[in-house]
Formats: sequence, structure tokens, C-alpha cells
Amino acid sequence: MFNDTFLRACQRDQTNSVPVWFMRQAGRYDADYRAIRKKYSLVEICEHPDVCVEVTKMPVDKLGVDAAILFSDIMIPIGAMGLPFVIKENVGPVIDTPIRHESDLHHLHTFVPEAALPHVLETIRLLKQDLSVPLIGFMGGPFTLASYMIEGGPSRDYLHTKTMMVSRPDMWQQLMDKLSEMIIVYGTAQVKAGASALQIFDSWVGSLAPSDYHQYVLPTMQRIFGALKELDVPLIYFGVNTGELLSTFAETGASVIGVDWRVPLTVARQRVGDNVALQGNFDPAMLFAPQSEIERRAQAILSEGTKAPGFIFNLGHGVKPSTDIAVLRELVAYVHQFRLTC
Amino acid sequence: MFNDTFLRACQRDQTNSVPVWFMRQAGRYDADYRAIRKKYSLVEICEHPDVCVEVTKMPVDKLGVDAAILFSDIMIPIGAMGLPFVIKENVGPVIDTPIRHESDLHHLHTFVPEAALPHVLETIRLLKQDLSVPLIGFMGGPFTLASYMIEGGPSRDYLHTKTMMVSRPDMWQQLMDKLSEMIIVYGTAQVKAGASALQIFDSWVGSLAPSDYHQYVLPTMQRIFGALKELDVPLIYFGVNTGELLSTFAETGASVIGVDWRVPLTVARQRVGDNVALQGNFDPAMLFAPQSEIERRAQAILSEGTKAPGFIFNLGHGVKPSTDIAVLRELVAYVHQFRLTC
Repeated sequence: MFNDTFLRACQRDQTNSVPVWFMRQAGRYDADYRAIRKKYSLVEICEHPDVCVEVTKMPVDKLGVDAAILFSDIMIPIGAMGLPFVIKENVGPVIDTPIRHESDLHHLHTFVPEAALPHVLETIRLLKQDLSVPLIGFMGGPFTLASYMIEGGPSRDYLHTKTMMVSRPDMWQQLMDKLSEMIIVYGTAQVKAGASALQIFDSWVGSLAPSDYHQYVLPTMQRIFGALKELDVPLIYFGVNTGELLSTFAETGASVIGVDWRVPLTVARQRVGDNVALQGNFDPAMLFAPQSEIERRAQAILSEGTKAPGFIFNLGHGVKPSTDIAVLRELVAYVHQFRLTC
Repeated sequence: MFNDTFLRACQRDQTNSVPVWFMRQAGRYDADYRAIRKKYSLVEICEHPDVCVEVTKMPVDKLGVDAAILFSDIMIPIGAMGLPFVIKENVGPVIDTPIRHESDLHHLHTFVPEAALPHVLETIRLLKQDLSVPLIGFMGGPFTLASYMIEGGPSRDYLHTKTMMVSRPDMWQQLMDKLSEMIIVYGTAQVKAGASALQIFDSWVGSLAPSDYHQYVLPTMQRIFGALKELDVPLIYFGVNTGELLSTFAETGASVIGVDWRVPLTVARQRVGDNVALQGNFDPAMLFAPQSEIERRAQAILSEGTKAPGFIFNLGHGVKPSTDIAVLRELVAYVHQFRLTC
């Protein structure tokens, strides 16, 4: 039987229990995943539909989560756009030829998902036949992707990115346009192949002041969500440190907004209004607390989150590799036994 | 003539212009500083009062800022408490023997500033005779110091720190007690030697959820500021990513609260109330924007900041090493020419 609790919560429909999934729910905390990673790199997993299906399904079978998320990386389509990257263990994506000059932009070519990433779409088609829960497709957000492309890797201060943004708004806009085109066609292809929802990981966009987000990113997000809306699937928008951006996020067209642990859900709800669902907001570091403390915190989040329709339990950021799988399994069970009162 | 504009703004008294200084205003952006660092490490500068005086004074002479801040590092007293550290270039403080077990806490000894760091107090006494602007003394905040001591270095997720906090609240409290004792005696010694204000850099405390800040840090901050209040100097409290904590910061007893660029000053003012001054909130990455854009942004901050008494112009975090010194000088001049309307 297909479990549609996650989709119903995204649409702010009534559900019998609160749906739960975890960002990076297929990952290094799981010994079986680590065993597979001894044979395949992250990128190689994505290139082998059979392996990628197996990895994507693992947390559904092992943890009992209410949604699967395609195993992939936000940089995969960037490589396919002609900007080569490597994923360095414990570092993140690294690009040897970052985008700094206008000519660098010209090297980025149009992204055709069926031609560039047929294995990803094949993985989604296989998962669609197989899964008992909805599959979430995903893409990186335009600011976050741009930051890797311009900095050449992870950054603390996004100096080159912000400098291009304000010093060369023409170049910035060209890059935003190229990325939004990619995000739209890639999201469309994922849904057509079988994804039931899309999440945009704009993880680092919270490094922007609200006025800069409004000027340099919001129009691009509106264009992206405006186009993806046609697909009629839930559209989730996520970043960390986004407290002051939440009210603007509600203007992007997202139907679900992710919140990290820094913003209490009641405050988040006030900022985003009543027309979007919320997803979050358990601090992943708190999965190392004693079981009773984890449950106390989950209880507090569930009580706050369910004060209005449309709440999906998740972490405020990805699962840490050193997390105990048993803790995740118990947390899922705890969320599921919580009785909705509204 | 002594320029007391900074102190007057801290006290929310009327001033003729908006005072300005920059976090890390003595630093690698300055070629003369880099030349000194070829001869002395950061810690060695702190150990030589004549050099430390020279470095502390540089930005006052070169940029025209309204306050000097003691050249030092938040880890200096931690070394003096018996936990050795090194400052690794481009990384930060690294501790080979982090605090993980209860026995590790017993190795921390009582900190007596006059005995442990006589050169720091001598530096302050020399500066007091010499400076035409107030000298800001400083200490690390309890969460931020604890995070370096427990993690053994900079961290993205503060996993060990948060785990100790919630799993061993007894150990956490012992550490908070030891740190607050150090912060109080060190702050007191700095003021007695000649510092006219104290800033607590709790830079990473914004990684906590508001409820965790309230439970695990606020009582310690209240104890610290409660004791330091006796000194009758402005007490500044600073961290990044602290938007949701600002209303609680107003309960710490701080007289000035630092805000990064993520929170518009009008919003910050609503959260902290009318009884504290604000300091901030220019995004240091925006110092790489064209001059006209820098001025537009400074103008916006000045207009917002001066809507209520008590505003000090600063960056939302430290000056980046690649910043152009001329840009900083021009920004100081721009802030000084801004005419107060309230």
C-alpha cells in the first residue's frame, strides 16, 4: 500500500500521523552505505541505477521514513553543464576552474537532462515502480550552486560570490538565468520520470542579508517555482540560517519551506504565513543526546509544528555521519506515535 | 583631545557623529601588520607590549576609527588556564587535548590575570597613556570558548560541544563556571588597567536554538555581565547568526548588542528593546563592492541605525584579510560625514 502521508502534509491536508524523513537519510551513518561507498564513489553510485535505487531505498526500509529522496548531489548537473568538479571527502565539491570572468560563463552549455543524465532518470523510473512512499527529486538552489561555481568549493564568507553579485550584476544575472533554466528542466524531467515532489537545496543562501536576497535571488526563485508549479507537485525550499529570509521565502512560490533549528516553528509560521507547509526543525547535533532528551525535543517540535495544518518532521540540516542508526529509527517511531490534535 | 563618541553612543547619549570601528581592524589586510607578523606570531605580538601597542594603535592612526580594540585572541587566557593551543594560519585555534571527560576539567586551573598575563595588562596601561580614543578590552564568550576547548578547533556543527551540553549538563555547568570566573576576573583586570569598554565575542553561540541558549548559556551570561556591571563600562555582546537570540540577549545585562548583516537594524531594535545600544551591521564581504555601492549600503545602515539613540557602526563580523585598506579608510570618512537627524 502506498503511503501518501508526506504528500498530504505538503498539501496541508489532514493526516493521521506526522510524516518524517531526514536530509542525508542515505548516508555515511549507515554501515551498508559505507560498504557500498568502498566500491563506488558518490558520483559512481549516481551513474549506476541499480546501486542508486538500492541506496535511495535503504532508509525507507531501515528507518521507516515517509519519503525517499533521490540519492544524488546538487553538483551532478553542474558537471553536465560543462564545469567539472570532484567531491572531496570531508570537504565537499571542489572545482579547479571556478567562474570568475565573463568568458567562463560562455563555457557553460545548455543542460538536456535526457541526454546528459539518462542514468538519473532511469533510477527515478525504477524507484517509481518499487517504492511504497513518495520519491523526492531535488536540485541545488541558484545561490548555493553559484557559490560553489564561483568560489571553487565550500566557503565561509562567499567573498567571490557576493563580489560578483554586487560588482557585476550583469554576470550574476547571466549565471542565475543559466542555473534557473537547468533547475527548471531538470526538475521537470525528474517529475516526468516519477518524482512526486521536488526540493530545492539553497543551503547557503542564509549568508545573504534580506535586502540582498530580495534583489539578487528572489526573482530567480520566483521564475523557478513559477515554472515548476505547472508540474503540480509539492515544491520544497530549504536553507540554513534563513530566519530573516522566511517572510520573503513565502513570496517565492514554494509550497513547503524548510526551517533549521534556530527558528522556533511558531515564529517561522508567523513569518511564512498560512499558505505554506513547514518542514524541520530538529537540530541534528541533538541526535547525540540521551533518548529521553531526544523525545522531549521531538515532542516540543511536534506540538509546535502541528498547531497548523502542513507539518513535516525533519532535521534542520543533514544527518551527521557519526549518528547512531538506532537513534534515527527510534525517532521515526516516536514521530509516528505522536497523536495529532488539530 | 580625547574622542569619547564611541563611549557616548554605547551609553545611548547624543553624539555629533556616528562612531565607527571594525572587528579585526588590526589585521592581515594591512601591509604593516603583515610585516610585523613576519617577525612575530600572533601570540608573540601579545607577549611584547611595545609591539602589541603598535599593532593596536595602527587602525586608529590609519583609518581614523573611534575606538581601539586590544590586539589579542580569545584563546590567550585559555592557554593560561592550562589548556595549550596553537593558532593555525587559515584554520584558527587548535587544541591537541580537547576536553571530553570529567577529568579533563580538573586540569583547568584558576586564572589570575596579573600572574598569568602581566604583558597584556602592561599593554593596556601603555595604551591608556597613549590613545586618543577609548580602548575596548575583550574576552571570548563562554559558548564559543567551550566550543574550541571541547571540539579541539573550529567546527561546523559543534557536535561534541552540544553533546556535552545536553548529555552531561553537570560537566557543561562546571565548564561554564570556570569560564565565567575567568571572564569576570580578566575583564575586571583589563578595565582596572585602562580599558574603557569590554566586548564579549560569543561568535558561534548563534548555532544554538533559542531554547538551548536560554537553558544552557543565558544564566552564565547573566552572571558574567552582572559581575562586570560593577565596573561601570559599556558591555558589548557579539555573535553571528544570532537573529533569533536577540530578544534573549537583551536579558543578559549587555549594554550594547552586536548584530551581523542578516538582521536589519529595525528588526534587531524591535527584538532587543530600547534599553541597549546596537553595533553593526555591514556585511564584510560587501567591502569588495564598488565604492558607490558601499556608500549606498552604509547610508542605509546609518539611516536605520540612528532611528534610536545608541548606534555604533561596525561590520557584522571581522575584516577579511583581502580587504583594501583604502576602502576601510573611505568608509570611516563616509560614516563620520553622516549627519545625525535624531
